[in-house]
Amino acid sequence: MTDYELMGAALEEAARAAALGEVPVGAVVARNGEIIAAAHNTRETEKNALHHAELLAIDAACKKLGGWRLWQCELFVTLEPCPMCSGGIINSRIRRVVYGAADTKAGCCGSVTDLFALPFNHHPVVERGLRAEEAQALLQAFFLRLREQRAAKPRWKPPVTP
Amino acid sequence: MTDYELMGAALEEAARAAALGEVPVGAVVARNGEIIAAAHNTRETEKNALHHAELLAIDAACKKLGGWRLWQCELFVTLEPCPMCSGGIINSRIRRVVYGAADTKAGCCGSVTDLFALPFNHHPVVERGLRAEEAQALLQAFFLRLREQRAAKPRWKPPVTP
Repeated sequence: MTDYELMGAALEEAARAAALGEVPVGAVVARNGEIIAAAHNTRETEKNALHHAELLAIDAACKKLGGWRLWQCELFVTLEPCPMCSGGIINSRIRRVVYGAADTKAGCCGSVTDLFALPFNHHPVVERGLRAEEAQALLQAFFLRLREQRAAKPRWKPPVTP
Repeated sequence: MTDYELMGAALEEAARAAALGEVPVGAVVARNGEIIAAAHNTRETEKNALHHAELLAIDAACKKLGGWRLWQCELFVTLEPCPMCSGGIINSRIRRVVYGAADTKAGCCGSVTDLFALPFNHHPVVERGLRAEEAQALLQAFFLRLREQRAAKPRWKPPVTP
């Protein structure tokens, strides 16, 4: 599969997250263009702070390949990885990271900081912006729907005292 | 339990890791001085890059408490958290982190960088150096034993050609 197709698989994962009412982020771990593991954000569904798409995909890839060094693997993710997921990428020795949309609030591959530029013991190659518009469109539609749902909810009003 | 005792529980976890041949790091998630979850590094045993003590303890705490926001919880860990685990602390909203030994190679609470000083949406209180000598002693003994085992192994020699 090409990079474009692998990011397409990550976008499909992101759409699955959106269908669950989760922030739509999807990730795929691939080796030689073949998908090893795919996952999407399930933080709310699983009530778990660690259930970001990237970490779930890395976890599944370690289990599938039977080792913790994913040095032949590449990660495709629709949104720029957060500190935790960037750290997971370093720890698992993933050799290349391709992400879609930038995350100005939590992104650690250049937005808030660039963890891969610091003197840790692994430095993946990073490529930015692949199919970013599609990733961004999923996120925007999700947050728009969330705001509409919140606006539609009747607000609590204090009881009127005589 | 006091901070000193909670770090004692984390040190016991680190000793369990050492007994498995793992880098000895242990962690405890506590709420109101009571242990919610305890874990130790099992990266080699489980062949998983994400199996650091802190992430395993946060994962267990989310499962036990049934939610991803651990804002009433504190983390006690024998070694300064790496980028991944510091990010996991931010994502789980843990309110206070107490660690033992500094990690000059991967520590992200002040050593290589300070992720908690960056403008992410959560900033835990950090306390450094509690029972650091004991944490350091466990690590030093582990790496000394590792070097001795490696030195004892006969090296491969190329066959002598006539």
